[in-house]
Amino acid sequence: MSSTWGERVKISVFGGSHTEAIGITIDGIPAGFAVDLDKILLQMSRRAPGRDEAATPRKESDAPELLCGILDGITTGEPITAIIWNTNKRSRDYESLRFTPRPGHADYTAFVKYGGKNDIRGGGHFSGRLTAPIVFAGALCRQLLEAKGIAIGAHVSSVGQVHDDCFDAVNVCADELHKLSTEYFPVINPAAKDKMYAEIKAAREAGDSIGGTVECAVVGMEAGIGEPMFGGVENKLTSIIYGIPAVKGIEFGAGFALSEMHGSESNDAFYFSEGTVRTATNNMGGILGGITTGMPIILRTAFKPTPSISLPQKTVNLQAGENTEIEIKGRHDPCIVPRAAPVVEAAAAIAIADMLAIEGKLVKQ
Amino acid sequence: MSSTWGERVKISVFGGSHTEAIGITIDGIPAGFAVDLDKILLQMSRRAPGRDEAATPRKESDAPELLCGILDGITTGEPITAIIWNTNKRSRDYESLRFTPRPGHADYTAFVKYGGKNDIRGGGHFSGRLTAPIVFAGALCRQLLEAKGIAIGAHVSSVGQVHDDCFDAVNVCADELHKLSTEYFPVINPAAKDKMYAEIKAAREAGDSIGGTVECAVVGMEAGIGEPMFGGVENKLTSIIYGIPAVKGIEFGAGFALSEMHGSESNDAFYFSEGTVRTATNNMGGILGGITTGMPIILRTAFKPTPSISLPQKTVNLQAGENTEIEIKGRHDPCIVPRAAPVVEAAAAIAIADMLAIEGKLVKQ
Amino acid sequence: MSSTWGERVKISVFGGSHTEAIGITIDGIPAGFAVDLDKILLQMSRRAPGRDEAATPRKESDAPELLCGILDGITTGEPITAIIWNTNKRSRDYESLRFTPRPGHADYTAFVKYGGKNDIRGGGHFSGRLTAPIVFAGALCRQLLEAKGIAIGAHVSSVGQVHDDCFDAVNVCADELHKLSTEYFPVINPAAKDKMYAEIKAAREAGDSIGGTVECAVVGMEAGIGEPMFGGVENKLTSIIYGIPAVKGIEFGAGFALSEMHGSESNDAFYFSEGTVRTATNNMGGILGGITTGMPIILRTAFKPTPSISLPQKTVNLQAGENTEIEIKGRHDPCIVPRAAPVVEAAAAIAIADMLAIEGKLVKQ
Amino acid sequence: MSSTWGERVKISVFGGSHTEAIGITIDGIPAGFAVDLDKILLQMSRRAPGRDEAATPRKESDAPELLCGILDGITTGEPITAIIWNTNKRSRDYESLRFTPRPGHADYTAFVKYGGKNDIRGGGHFSGRLTAPIVFAGALCRQLLEAKGIAIGAHVSSVGQVHDDCFDAVNVCADELHKLSTEYFPVINPAAKDKMYAEIKAAREAGDSIGGTVECAVVGMEAGIGEPMFGGVENKLTSIIYGIPAVKGIEFGAGFALSEMHGSESNDAFYFSEGTVRTATNNMGGILGGITTGMPIILRTAFKPTPSISLPQKTVNLQAGENTEIEIKGRHDPCIVPRAAPVVEAAAAIAIADMLAIEGKLVKQ
Repeated sequence: MSSTWGERVKISVFGGSHTEAIGITIDGIPAGFAVDLDKILLQMSRRAPGRDEAATPRKESDAPELLCGILDGITTGEPITAIIWNTNKRSRDYESLRFTPRPGHADYTAFVKYGGKNDIRGGGHFSGRLTAPIVFAGALCRQLLEAKGIAIGAHVSSVGQVHDDCFDAVNVCADELHKLSTEYFPVINPAAKDKMYAEIKAAREAGDSIGGTVECAVVGMEAGIGEPMFGGVENKLTSIIYGIPAVKGIEFGAGFALSEMHGSESNDAFYFSEGTVRTATNNMGGILGGITTGMPIILRTAFKPTPSISLPQKTVNLQAGENTEIEIKGRHDPCIVPRAAPVVEAAAAIAIADMLAIEGKLVKQ
Repeated sequence: MSSTWGERVKISVFGGSHTEAIGITIDGIPAGFAVDLDKILLQMSRRAPGRDEAATPRKESDAPELLCGILDGITTGEPITAIIWNTNKRSRDYESLRFTPRPGHADYTAFVKYGGKNDIRGGGHFSGRLTAPIVFAGALCRQLLEAKGIAIGAHVSSVGQVHDDCFDAVNVCADELHKLSTEYFPVINPAAKDKMYAEIKAAREAGDSIGGTVECAVVGMEAGIGEPMFGGVENKLTSIIYGIPAVKGIEFGAGFALSEMHGSESNDAFYFSEGTVRTATNNMGGILGGITTGMPIILRTAFKPTPSISLPQKTVNLQAGENTEIEIKGRHDPCIVPRAAPVVEAAAAIAIADMLAIEGKLVKQ
Repeated sequence: MSSTWGERVKISVFGGSHTEAIGITIDGIPAGFAVDLDKILLQMSRRAPGRDEAATPRKESDAPELLCGILDGITTGEPITAIIWNTNKRSRDYESLRFTPRPGHADYTAFVKYGGKNDIRGGGHFSGRLTAPIVFAGALCRQLLEAKGIAIGAHVSSVGQVHDDCFDAVNVCADELHKLSTEYFPVINPAAKDKMYAEIKAAREAGDSIGGTVECAVVGMEAGIGEPMFGGVENKLTSIIYGIPAVKGIEFGAGFALSEMHGSESNDAFYFSEGTVRTATNNMGGILGGITTGMPIILRTAFKPTPSISLPQKTVNLQAGENTEIEIKGRHDPCIVPRAAPVVEAAAAIAIADMLAIEGKLVKQ
Repeated sequence: MSSTWGERVKISVFGGSHTEAIGITIDGIPAGFAVDLDKILLQMSRRAPGRDEAATPRKESDAPELLCGILDGITTGEPITAIIWNTNKRSRDYESLRFTPRPGHADYTAFVKYGGKNDIRGGGHFSGRLTAPIVFAGALCRQLLEAKGIAIGAHVSSVGQVHDDCFDAVNVCADELHKLSTEYFPVINPAAKDKMYAEIKAAREAGDSIGGTVECAVVGMEAGIGEPMFGGVENKLTSIIYGIPAVKGIEFGAGFALSEMHGSESNDAFYFSEGTVRTATNNMGGILGGITTGMPIILRTAFKPTPSISLPQKTVNLQAGENTEIEIKGRHDPCIVPRAAPVVEAAAAIAIADMLAIEGKLVKQ
């Protein structure tokens, strides 16, 4: 626990990096929706490892096998379960790590929590590989949202100190998001990507890793979605997005920058635009009182550097009760952020589908 | 919905700024715990308005009336309910706002969500006043945590561009947190407070408001608390803290700064200290894989400026369907951050009590 | 825990028999609904003690005080909280019972669960008095259901071995249910009531008590409400109705009698009636696969005899660790069933409101 | 929705009678428990079809494939997922039924709920086949309970009007339950089984079906487990057991018979037996106020006759909007009750594991 999430669209994620299979069950998808499996595969390929030099050389097809819930391409209203077989396992890489926890990984905390009985192979249930089922579910939810005119897209807003341009929080549009959400390593400003690659390459060559941020936008949301207090859009989105490994910060709209503003600057003025209420600025990221304003939802997520680095690190031997050093071998991303962008999109899609379902607005258009 | 939160320690918050009363029910507090009501009142007074020139001049006793769950000062294991009567209401201030939503407030989104039927007096259920019951519940949970050696404290880490010192993420101790958690407008560096007051005064005199940040620490947590994926400490804490009005960003440990680091810098090296595993740095804020490491939990929360400013602002008239201007009168904080610090502590206390209860570790000491 | 119930219409019940007040918070009632408070008071008076010789002579006004959520008679969409002050307490009746648990009561199990720290006055949180807030919430939900053409009514189907007529499971209509649901001690066949009174009188005069059953019907439900497996109508209804003290059995439709039937007898044949699908019989009680058929929902609930009897009973002294006897004094119903009928209706109304809300059908008609 | 159940031990059931596979994810099983897979297979074989002439001739291995959560026979603390491939499908039997709902089945209600888009093959997600994953999860939970000295067993207490002996509610013991819980078609009195077989045979030969009851007992439960009001043992058990198809009534202890008793008869007198509090009778079925007394938990479940009969039945053609007749072909149990006994045990085991986990008592012994 707790690998389940959601109120009216519920996901249940299972599996570990080196178990027979990983997978997900999605409960609450309405019946009668035509699913485009190619679009799901596209999203999964964006997250899959081994795409380029920014990612781990571990190659897996990540092809999901659909067990139930979709018949002849149409959802049946029953829970949808898909699994991904783990075919490319090299478990011997990990066994030596049971008592020497890798800094920055969940090895130590899982050891304490599970009394050393957890599956440590490849990080077990804590592995980033578990984001593959989330992308599956998100790619499915995204299609339901698209049918309602809602688009979700994210870009690699920074790698280390190299920053991409930011979304125009007022004018970001569905076309821009659709484009980003089909790309591997999506950026707004292509020039930024070259610099980011250079940062990542430098980190790899140094046996090191590097962090970054993902900015995500959702457009086409009607106003009035979300609930007060603990059911707000921010609460819902963070409660799922923090399920993505390596996330250590999330901000909405202008986020932390708001803390340095005056109210006269931060307040988004309302105005009518062709009968629709809009705001002239969007510092609030499309959310007021936890409820959507109808303006784009904007959030930024901070990813820590991949903890697996090949440089020697200080750690402990839990069995011997003494300090030691560790050198991590194996296949690891020097920067997880490009592959994390589709995962953030997926988690956002699931959360928004759940919020619409809560309002009884997922089914009917 | 949804004004309820929690799995094993559940809170249900009710009331609005100008209803007969506001209050909270807390379900899941174990029986037999001796409650110090004075300590609860102390916490509530830290949040209460009218304390000084940084806050709204609206004065309310905020004295909670205990309806059930505590008998002769001892918890009975039953739900605990406390209410606070709303005695100082000036509803006429608000009625004119029904169709002219205040920028930065939930007026517009609530109007859409509730079809204009919501209680707009004083912001209704969206009012910051609803944090008073949260402080009540938090002050209660805090006592259970203290009995287990867990201390929680927060400080005003910034107002506008004036920054307090940061917590020493490795060495922050219970004494320091106890001191902060009894103060109004807690800061680490007293010199910072003067500058913050100057910022707030300037904002008030300009009819404006200003944002800020609250940094919160929890020490004394054993390792192994929290759950993987969606049940992680970050997920739990953000899912409740975003229930505090005006929060637009939360980060853990080094947070967004991690996105600019290399792994060799961000990874916290493990070492044994008198038989206990500790980390030499604490960039992870005491959390790895969603589970506590035993090091201090560190988080920072960004508060937007109070949206209620007396300067004229552009908005819409929802009834007339046309653009207009609004000047907000009434009693408002130019900076909510000093009063928000105890609320962040309270929300954290509730979340941590719930996580301990989930592990079956709230009851026994 | 757990005194909360519900998914989209959530109730949180608080208080004990002799605490300052008892009450309930209802979250999830849509905004803009005009509430008839007199109808709520009528329902509460049906449950209130002291109505006649069948009930306890303890008299309490049971008048609810509304704290929030309804403004000028209209729901605001916020949580609705009502409390009932406990004004007529005679706590000395109970203190002697702490270590000598009353047979058939929760005294012993609560003693074990709460380590003897629970509030035993009047049964504390286990008291039948806690059904008053449920009736408040049910009376509110009932009005929302009535606005959608749904009627709920129950009758005392038996007291001891005296049986009332049963509902006509196919033809029971809204008028019949409306009539029953305004009566104290509702029965279908008035002759049965006289015999029931005689049974109750005999029990009282013998210092004894007697059990009975309540049959409840819901008409006007559209087909297709409820969810498969664990979200079925039966699951939802039993999960709340077992929250009523003294319930030890619940059956739907023909219930246990179905276990003696053949399929050719039990299966309800479908037919079209003026374009609507109906069934010729209704052995299934309006539910197939956990989902409503559109036919009346029928359920019967078994109530054990009130455990408080004045006859001497064998019990234990938990402090002394020895067997002893107990004679229970105080004010007690010899038969709880007449007062339980409106509670069953109320619980059913809450459950059905929640199920409609889950389908997004509580708000709009 | 909602095919998930549980608070601290959560199950998520997926699949339909004729999908690629069915399965279950169990979240919340503690790490480090040695699982006996043979015992799980034994339980699954008790439920599997085709065992004898009482059951459907459809033969399936029902062999579960374990995807994750158990490594080298030891639980890892991660979610446990097992799937069962559907290998013996004859879908053509069902397609003609889309618009002619079978009386007593969920065909009609599912048609309405899902707008005719649900998977009707073999009853889809409503099929009794979905109880196989529940038995898997129950067999796993049962082993955790056995390690704590808790035994669960059920017997076919009646088929039609043929009744087995009842459990001795006071003295039923673990040995008796262990024996019953390894048998196909378990009964207390062997003579009853012959008569039951005769009833079932007669029903089959008549092209008909017949109902029955299952009585289940749980011994070895400590006192104090369960929660007040909506978290009571009865609420928890019914909320999961009603997820078993064909259940239409559940009663605890003396159940409906209590409604005909006087309090002097129904109240279970307490006494000390070698330092332990016991009751001389057990009319309450081991539960007072929703909380365990430490005496055996006793419940009886009513199963309606299998709705699939080969006799002609009246139904409707939903497409044509007219009345029609139906003759159901295919492979069906004339009496589901013998195969239902292990399912009731399994559901009870899951519920009790969840209740122990809630108390923090599932992990440590």
